[in-house]
Amino acid sequence: MDSSPHAGITRSTHIMAPYRLLIPGPVDIDDEVLRALASPTVPHYGAEWAAQYQEIVHGLKYLFGTEGDVYPIVGSGSTGLDAAIASFVATGKRMAIVRNGYFGDRMATIAKAYGVEVFDINGEWGRAIKVETVREALANHGPFDVLGVVYAETSTGALNPLPELAALAKEFGIPIIVDAITGFAGTPLELDAWGIDVCISASQKAMAAPAGLAFVAVSPKGWQYMDANPVGQRGWILDVRTWRKAAIDSPGAHPQPATMPTGLMAAVALRLRQITAIGKAEYVERHVRAAKRFRTGLTSMGVGYLVPDAEATPQVTPVLVPAGKDATQIITTLRERYGFLATGGMSSLSGKIIRVGHMGKANSDAYIDDALEALGDICAN
Amino acid sequence: MDSSPHAGITRSTHIMAPYRLLIPGPVDIDDEVLRALASPTVPHYGAEWAAQYQEIVHGLKYLFGTEGDVYPIVGSGSTGLDAAIASFVATGKRMAIVRNGYFGDRMATIAKAYGVEVFDINGEWGRAIKVETVREALANHGPFDVLGVVYAETSTGALNPLPELAALAKEFGIPIIVDAITGFAGTPLELDAWGIDVCISASQKAMAAPAGLAFVAVSPKGWQYMDANPVGQRGWILDVRTWRKAAIDSPGAHPQPATMPTGLMAAVALRLRQITAIGKAEYVERHVRAAKRFRTGLTSMGVGYLVPDAEATPQVTPVLVPAGKDATQIITTLRERYGFLATGGMSSLSGKIIRVGHMGKANSDAYIDDALEALGDICAN
Repeated sequence: MDSSPHAGITRSTHIMAPYRLLIPGPVDIDDEVLRALASPTVPHYGAEWAAQYQEIVHGLKYLFGTEGDVYPIVGSGSTGLDAAIASFVATGKRMAIVRNGYFGDRMATIAKAYGVEVFDINGEWGRAIKVETVREALANHGPFDVLGVVYAETSTGALNPLPELAALAKEFGIPIIVDAITGFAGTPLELDAWGIDVCISASQKAMAAPAGLAFVAVSPKGWQYMDANPVGQRGWILDVRTWRKAAIDSPGAHPQPATMPTGLMAAVALRLRQITAIGKAEYVERHVRAAKRFRTGLTSMGVGYLVPDAEATPQVTPVLVPAGKDATQIITTLRERYGFLATGGMSSLSGKIIRVGHMGKANSDAYIDDALEALGDICAN
Repeated sequence: MDSSPHAGITRSTHIMAPYRLLIPGPVDIDDEVLRALASPTVPHYGAEWAAQYQEIVHGLKYLFGTEGDVYPIVGSGSTGLDAAIASFVATGKRMAIVRNGYFGDRMATIAKAYGVEVFDINGEWGRAIKVETVREALANHGPFDVLGVVYAETSTGALNPLPELAALAKEFGIPIIVDAITGFAGTPLELDAWGIDVCISASQKAMAAPAGLAFVAVSPKGWQYMDANPVGQRGWILDVRTWRKAAIDSPGAHPQPATMPTGLMAAVALRLRQITAIGKAEYVERHVRAAKRFRTGLTSMGVGYLVPDAEATPQVTPVLVPAGKDATQIITTLRERYGFLATGGMSSLSGKIIRVGHMGKANSDAYIDDALEALGDICAN
């Protein structure tokens, strides 16, 4: 792991100190959702459990924009991505992966760990990938078996043009795997309309629930591809077919293959109810408005940000470190003087940007205005 | 999944209704631990995070009885078992697995999912495996590359003779993988003294923390075996070498490879502090005393239990369904009239036993005496 992006995060007080999180996930969570997390333990089986499980699946399908299958798998977002590649891309297959940020690299790392042959479609960190760059790669360096892309790049704040990339994959007759870990819920996402075959997200980003669940969505076409391209002996718990079998065999009693974190599922269920009540379009808009308010504020104080508006995702703003300032020093001052936790750039962006998230409580005007005031003070001195 | 053991678990009230859990995990949790679970979100990186992470690793090593490596991996117990086999047993290797319960079968299912050749060392459900049975299998049906065994069989309540089996593995020159998901913390466990190479547990059993973390322990000899017997392309997040690399590369800032559930880690840290303060021997004894109190009570009312005392684990008692009674009806009455959740037998034991756990709050005298009174009423009518 590259530890440099984390160099600014140290605290002299107890770990439960009430800092306000501006990091791009995990995020500050609604108090009622935290209380649901601390629900008394219930069994992870039985009719009532299954009803809650199915409610969660239903809510996740709504946010993914799919009538296909969705599984909430215990793990981090990387666990979900690992499950997707474990289930979907056989050793020796050729996978073209868009690499314009740390999490594009992560997808490549996982694919290579399964012996997948990875072709890099390189893009600039801090910019959306150009559709023409992907077209050129698919046309001139193929054939490929699968296209992989990160939707919202948490490391840079760029939003890759997913509908166009999905259309390209279709044009070239290959399936697409999407890391929407940060993209999910905070940006438009319509798996069925766009033709996405496999898509991954997680609980702790724009959904604003606690970490610990990965969500893996698979379309009927995704299943067809899997059935026609078996991956071989790739294990049990991260094979999405293991989850499919449990969901089919025992939907009303034990719809998943192993123990689930019941408090976390209660928190996710509540959060899905809250988001559904808001409506997914309006929920996305809250992130869009938050990012706009924050970026307008930055501009008005003469501070830049890395990603051009037309290519930016609303979940995170990569603030450019002003000339003469030091990223670690800004992060430290934000924390120690203003009680805000932000974080630095990763890998090649280390020292160049400060990442400010707009998810969870951080998409409120109060967080944004206070963060702007703090950054204004720091940059003025 | 076999849904039959869960047939008795349905509830007409809300999922948060305060039933008292007698199921053999997950368990009712100390209120302070639940409050820690609902801690405000913190980053899963930085110096203070790393300090908490290292404290957890330290506490887990104490409970495992090892100076070797331990990793808290996001997932269920099965995730940990999957990670152990993914990292340790190459496709085509021959693994002898003790099968005297549902979770012996689970280990075999996972091994087969990796293309491992499984040899069944069959034992009676409800009895500990006989050491001679294992010796005979290793001597007459080998050579084997690995021996796999479940320590405390949650499905039957039998405790397999782990020190003797580890000695046998050593005698035959093969490593041993142990599923101590239920066995951990509630029974004696001394990895280093007994010569256990790879051992798995999870947060939601005798440790009495919420579900969501698997613990994977690896001895220096386990690493040597892995290095000499590479498994090939088995993925990233469940390869324990991925966790080893993060722990070595960035122990003070980002000691794990991906996002961790920070509230759950806070709950586990607190629980480890509580158990350490009690002392691991006394903590085991609480389970032993609870099981004895419960079984003595059963005997005094003329109700039997499946596993002979000398072969039983103290975490769970498999109550034999009295003649003329129905398992599902007993479970339903326990729930609806007495507010206790117990569960039935799995697979071949379905309908024959009711499993009563003695972990978490259920190892208190109050739970045990109330459960005995309820069972006495039910069996008398």
